[in-house]
Amino acid sequence: MIAAKGYGTKHSFTDLKPYAFEREEAGPHEVEIEVLFCGVCHSDIHQVKNEWSNTVYPCVPGHEVVGRVTRVGAHVGKHAVGDIVGVGCMIESCRHCAPCQTGEENYCEGPNSWLATYNGPMVPAEKAPDGKNSYGRDNTFGGYSDVLVVNEDFVLKIPAGLKPEVAAPILCAGVTTYSPLKHWGVKPGDEVGIVGFGGLGHMAAKLAKAMGATVTVFTKTADKLKEAARLGVNGVLEDDKEALKPLKSSFDFILSTIPEKHDINPFIELLKRDATMCVVGALEPLKPVNNQEVAFHRKHVAGSLIGSLSDTQEVLDFCAQHGIGPDIEIIPIQDINKAFKKVEDSEARFRYVIEMASLKDETDFHQF
Amino acid sequence: MIAAKGYGTKHSFTDLKPYAFEREEAGPHEVEIEVLFCGVCHSDIHQVKNEWSNTVYPCVPGHEVVGRVTRVGAHVGKHAVGDIVGVGCMIESCRHCAPCQTGEENYCEGPNSWLATYNGPMVPAEKAPDGKNSYGRDNTFGGYSDVLVVNEDFVLKIPAGLKPEVAAPILCAGVTTYSPLKHWGVKPGDEVGIVGFGGLGHMAAKLAKAMGATVTVFTKTADKLKEAARLGVNGVLEDDKEALKPLKSSFDFILSTIPEKHDINPFIELLKRDATMCVVGALEPLKPVNNQEVAFHRKHVAGSLIGSLSDTQEVLDFCAQHGIGPDIEIIPIQDINKAFKKVEDSEARFRYVIEMASLKDETDFHQF
Repeated sequence: MIAAKGYGTKHSFTDLKPYAFEREEAGPHEVEIEVLFCGVCHSDIHQVKNEWSNTVYPCVPGHEVVGRVTRVGAHVGKHAVGDIVGVGCMIESCRHCAPCQTGEENYCEGPNSWLATYNGPMVPAEKAPDGKNSYGRDNTFGGYSDVLVVNEDFVLKIPAGLKPEVAAPILCAGVTTYSPLKHWGVKPGDEVGIVGFGGLGHMAAKLAKAMGATVTVFTKTADKLKEAARLGVNGVLEDDKEALKPLKSSFDFILSTIPEKHDINPFIELLKRDATMCVVGALEPLKPVNNQEVAFHRKHVAGSLIGSLSDTQEVLDFCAQHGIGPDIEIIPIQDINKAFKKVEDSEARFRYVIEMASLKDETDFHQF
Repeated sequence: MIAAKGYGTKHSFTDLKPYAFEREEAGPHEVEIEVLFCGVCHSDIHQVKNEWSNTVYPCVPGHEVVGRVTRVGAHVGKHAVGDIVGVGCMIESCRHCAPCQTGEENYCEGPNSWLATYNGPMVPAEKAPDGKNSYGRDNTFGGYSDVLVVNEDFVLKIPAGLKPEVAAPILCAGVTTYSPLKHWGVKPGDEVGIVGFGGLGHMAAKLAKAMGATVTVFTKTADKLKEAARLGVNGVLEDDKEALKPLKSSFDFILSTIPEKHDINPFIELLKRDATMCVVGALEPLKPVNNQEVAFHRKHVAGSLIGSLSDTQEVLDFCAQHGIGPDIEIIPIQDINKAFKKVEDSEARFRYVIEMASLKDETDFHQF
């Protein structure tokens, strides 16, 4: 076992606090990573607070992890000590189901689906068809910590052109928006709408723009219209009915990144015939959709979950190539609870990234 | 003007009654049709009762019309006197928009969209961008009458192999289900689910089976399980959770034909990854969809509206070729109000078709 330190919680109702715990040493196919930076994702908050009713405690969140390889197992061939690497939302999958065989591990249909970087398998033993946990671990601890041990196949390469702290949010916010933009074929000249302009939304806007699309972001926050202008995309207040009117039936693709239940009907009206609106932010029941508008123009409402390993490597390389990345604010881990509050209040511009070196200032660690 | 007789109503709250009225004579590009049979569609009931809040009164419903050509305008080239022909939901479209130019008139994006066989333009003047009605008619009278006058381009040919009374429901129930089955690429070996087993549902089941799919119908009505067996398709009670469990993630395409607000979540769970559930029955807000299931397997919820003229001709020919058609019960028009009640109570097996010769027994006609 190796000693690990991080920020976590044992309950849904308490702040994150420093904890000391242990991790398994790297096996023959695993790499040990010194965590340098970890992005703060809205889903970390959902998970810590058990807002999806599936949190396994203790919870050490963090799935936008960039670090330096410090040790490799005997059979590791893809990464070497000293490499700057990334770990996203997954650290293992069943590897046998059809999606795994075709490189779509994020849709793993194994009995426990994929193993999340924190919170354990996506389908825990209690919900698995055979009542078992094929990963042998009910919980996993994420990147709000100083060290991570991950199978080499689930470790991404951070391109030289990307700063490690900028690369971190690409591992979730980046790929979660890149994957559907790619899957639904966004191409130069397309009109693309992005609903919600936070961590995911601002990455979606930058990626769609780099793909050659004309991008319009829809936001509830007036001062974000300036941010849209700064990124060179259109900005519209989503409650401004007069502004929405001329946009009716004009979008080739719309991506909703709002991380909670919302009304997508006003945006469905903005789609062209046969076009798709994809919802990636809210993993819960949405407000009722009026099928009249959907049927009258043969529209689609779809969803998408993060992205595959190959999508993740692609978006890292795409960002390096196009010179884009998230707008980040680096924080010490001691500020994490304040940062959570600001994310919830839509005050982040746009992604907090924890500098994990700050953990070294901590002297008093709790035990799980 | 020519004298016409039919069944209609001036209010949402009264039964259909016999009316005498006038129609324009056939213009140079129009054909006059003696109506032989007209199917009874659930949407006739919605429209008569103003359940979509858009009914133009007086209302003479009927858009599954089969008849004999009795007169043709000077420039008509497609049809001749004596031909057995059909008229579905549309009798005109703008002919200039992109969907009209590519043969998808049912998605006409002209200022008034398409002109419905009854109830006038889909977008009335009051709702049109320019406040006008390009068709020059605020209302149209449908096939619950003895004569119809329609532009030749919107008149379909009834293949010799199809009885006129059997062909009638194909003009709406048939094409409304055929069009999405074709659009989403149903092919031999596919697992296809049909939700709702009434007029549309039983046509969908027959069509999907003839396309080579393995078909499962979901119904709330226990005695319809025997009907499913009779048609050679699987039948499942949609409230039977134990029966649904093994069907999870097993369908390539699911079509919902239920003509009112319902919960589609149990059926979304039955879709394979990347598959589509299309809702054609309910033209209103559905119950909230849980995006977690949609996103976790990148599923789609879509809608579809009837079908194009070419889809309509195709499904008529397809039915003739495969020897299939709706299960019908022929009624005299005097039974129409009873038939409406039975359709609402899910007691029809499966489609009522009015024999319009029965109108000749009527002696006392009201005036609009």
